Amino acid sequence: MMFSAFKKLALLVLALSILSPAYATEPAIKNEQAASPAQPDEEREKVFNAESFTLDNGMEVVIVPNSRAPVVTHMVWYKFGAADEPMGKSGIAHFLEHLMFKGSAQVGGRDLQPGEFSEIVRSMGGNDNAFTAQDYISYFQSVPAEHLETVMRMEAGRMNGLNPPENEVLSERKVIIEERKQRTDNDPRGQFGEQLAAAAFVNHPYGIPVIGWKHEAEALSYADAKAFYDRWYAPNNAILVVSGDVSPAKVFELAIEIYGQLPREDVPERARTRSPVLNSKTSVTLEHPAIHEPVVQTLFRVPSSHQSKDDALALQVLEEIMGGGPTSRLYKSLVVKQKIASSAGMSYHPSAWDDSSLWIYASPLPGQTLEMVQNALMGELRRLIKDGIDEDELNDAKSRMQDEAIYARDSLTGPAMVIGQSLATGQSLDDVEYWPYDIAGVSAEQVIAVAQKYLNPDVPTDHPPVSGYLLPQGQGEK
Amino acid sequence: MMFSAFKKLALLVLALSILSPAYATEPAIKNEQAASPAQPDEEREKVFNAESFTLDNGMEVVIVPNSRAPVVTHMVWYKFGAADEPMGKSGIAHFLEHLMFKGSAQVGGRDLQPGEFSEIVRSMGGNDNAFTAQDYISYFQSVPAEHLETVMRMEAGRMNGLNPPENEVLSERKVIIEERKQRTDNDPRGQFGEQLAAAAFVNHPYGIPVIGWKHEAEALSYADAKAFYDRWYAPNNAILVVSGDVSPAKVFELAIEIYGQLPREDVPERARTRSPVLNSKTSVTLEHPAIHEPVVQTLFRVPSSHQSKDDALALQVLEEIMGGGPTSRLYKSLVVKQKIASSAGMSYHPSAWDDSSLWIYASPLPGQTLEMVQNALMGELRRLIKDGIDEDELNDAKSRMQDEAIYARDSLTGPAMVIGQSLATGQSLDDVEYWPYDIAGVSAEQVIAVAQKYLNPDVPTDHPPVSGYLLPQGQGEK
Repeated sequence: MMFSAFKKLALLVLALSILSPAYATEPAIKNEQAASPAQPDEEREKVFNAESFTLDNGMEVVIVPNSRAPVVTHMVWYKFGAADEPMGKSGIAHFLEHLMFKGSAQVGGRDLQPGEFSEIVRSMGGNDNAFTAQDYISYFQSVPAEHLETVMRMEAGRMNGLNPPENEVLSERKVIIEERKQRTDNDPRGQFGEQLAAAAFVNHPYGIPVIGWKHEAEALSYADAKAFYDRWYAPNNAILVVSGDVSPAKVFELAIEIYGQLPREDVPERARTRSPVLNSKTSVTLEHPAIHEPVVQTLFRVPSSHQSKDDALALQVLEEIMGGGPTSRLYKSLVVKQKIASSAGMSYHPSAWDDSSLWIYASPLPGQTLEMVQNALMGELRRLIKDGIDEDELNDAKSRMQDEAIYARDSLTGPAMVIGQSLATGQSLDDVEYWPYDIAGVSAEQVIAVAQKYLNPDVPTDHPPVSGYLLPQGQGEK
Repeated sequence: MMFSAFKKLALLVLALSILSPAYATEPAIKNEQAASPAQPDEEREKVFNAESFTLDNGMEVVIVPNSRAPVVTHMVWYKFGAADEPMGKSGIAHFLEHLMFKGSAQVGGRDLQPGEFSEIVRSMGGNDNAFTAQDYISYFQSVPAEHLETVMRMEAGRMNGLNPPENEVLSERKVIIEERKQRTDNDPRGQFGEQLAAAAFVNHPYGIPVIGWKHEAEALSYADAKAFYDRWYAPNNAILVVSGDVSPAKVFELAIEIYGQLPREDVPERARTRSPVLNSKTSVTLEHPAIHEPVVQTLFRVPSSHQSKDDALALQVLEEIMGGGPTSRLYKSLVVKQKIASSAGMSYHPSAWDDSSLWIYASPLPGQTLEMVQNALMGELRRLIKDGIDEDELNDAKSRMQDEAIYARDSLTGPAMVIGQSLATGQSLDDVEYWPYDIAGVSAEQVIAVAQKYLNPDVPTDHPPVSGYLLPQGQGEK
């Protein structure tokens, strides 16, 4: 029920947007066009043409019309997540997300028994799921368009009428422990990811896994879940995103009737503890028999869109140039030219409430030392900072990014995912709609500036990068 | 007002016990004697001959008679510390400790103005201070014996009558920030220690510095301090230790009259979050221009006396064999024989409520790689585990330890420190009094067993050791 956290969700969004190339259209936005920043909004084309509205109780509603098929995706995004859990109760947001399927009220209908929510969705020929991340929790159903009202009544019901029976609580705790076992305890990549995050996010909840530390998840109670539910779940802390073959007017009408019945509640701010300024370099090494190809990586803490829209835009362009597939600098340098790695890349996720992570990584080929490959990765960062980017390389990267945004239109779920994720992490609908123009406006100087500021291997930052080495058993060098 | 934390306190205790060699007596306990475990208590000689008593309100009282000089040390130890702070309020225990000198009630006297507590002590020809550690907070005064009653009335008063004026609170916050600056922010050793602890104690409060993360300490308020005070300070959460030229009967009488007036209060358990089981090795590297000699070290998490008395006793003997000065194995091997380091040693502190830390360290000589010296340290651990210890080496180590306990008798403050620290971390008075016998009972097999279980470089543990490298600028190898 959880796409573990941020990374998998972003990969899913990417998958959704690139899985439908048949619909590819010529990019509507050219870089030259957007170079004029004074262009008024009414002349600019939106990516999704979404419409939005806020209910009297504070709940935001966004509709993305899409009439390719007579179906609708209904998502509720909550503006809090695992990073808002009380210390010592890690995993409670995710455990609660599971319990939301185990019995709840329904607005304008009878109460739902454990499992009944999903059974009803399936009986309509639809599917449903949910996921928990550090900064948001999302519940969604994809159903034939005529069933939108039914899923709304069920979803609104569990927003403030959770009532799972006790035996379901205990059995569901076993389910989340099993989920943790499969994703983490039995997977060295999962363990490694947890330990890298812990090293990079000292004293910040992003250093605690969404699924919870095992010993804490095993001790969670219904009382813990209910306390989290009572504290955070409220219509004024939620965003409804509906995508599909339905008129905005109809969705607004239903939302007012159904979600509008729920009372506004006092909810806390997202006040997380912050990491101290540090000056030591940390490295994390895991050797494991299940690993066959070594991986070296470095995690940098960089701004999210919520923290700095401009820096996040420049970092996205940087990511495309450095790590965007087989034409990227890292791949061309380490894999094609130097032939020291079987893969290499960079990964950055701008949607976070607090700091985002940027990863740079490579898989050394046999015979190459970890240090040599790590140095090659850092060498590419140094070269970028020293020599800059030429206009062709910049424009090619921007065009590829803009194309992806346009492709994303054709999916039913993709746009709802992008919008929900963005709004739940403090961005605006305009940030999503005009993103291709914002990308077009990023200059080479801005890209170099963020690399210089956040990724320069030779300049200390407040949160030094963390190096990671995931290795086959016996290949540790230290 | 704070001997930063555990390490410095232990060093102080050591200093106190070895600074008075003029009083050295022949060790009263021989190893052979203690080899008989069935020896009844009444035949065994206590180290300090302390007497103890519990007041009706739950406060423990311990007296260590010492008539060498007409002075008395009066200490109150609280059974909680920085590790019991709320998340995000690091440094509040220490800040509060400072505020305890800034105005309070007095039992049977007028209220004290800011600074007056220490002025009165000084006017008696005495001195006073306090310190905050992860597991305890202690306030003490050394005064001519006839002033014991006065310091008791003052100390009892501030146990539940704190009343600093607002302007003192704000100016004192500057003082603790300045203290942090001197100890940590301007000292790479302090920064390094913080970052090693953070890496070794993921999700546990020992990973948070006693003095507080800078940004959190800067934001502390009187309301935070008062909440901590109200939650934890109570006679039933405190231990009075009096050492000096005073009769136990007189101390009990005064304690009943003065501390006995304070009501028992509800206090929480020391319920800290625990570290997850991890399997990655972490290393922390700090290069700094103020460092002239490199240091390599490895921190192992091992049991405290509170967690396992037997393991802690064996670890203490192990520490003496491996790291107890110029006759120790590490020194003889790395400094004298291999000539690769200018210093080498091991350090273990058994008094903790949760896991203790054990450090192994060396300073590589110029021309030696960090890796070579790290390997030499680990090599000595491997050799110990493989080849064991002979009886002479074991008995010599035990004799040196027992001698130190006997020397400690002669100090005024040392015994009170050892007793307070031990009782505040869950040990009993008998654990202190009969410690030389317990040490005598440790076998070579037990020493090897704890090395094998907790310090074997080739066997994974639940909390992998953390390697640290504190280096002159530019000497990082990675």
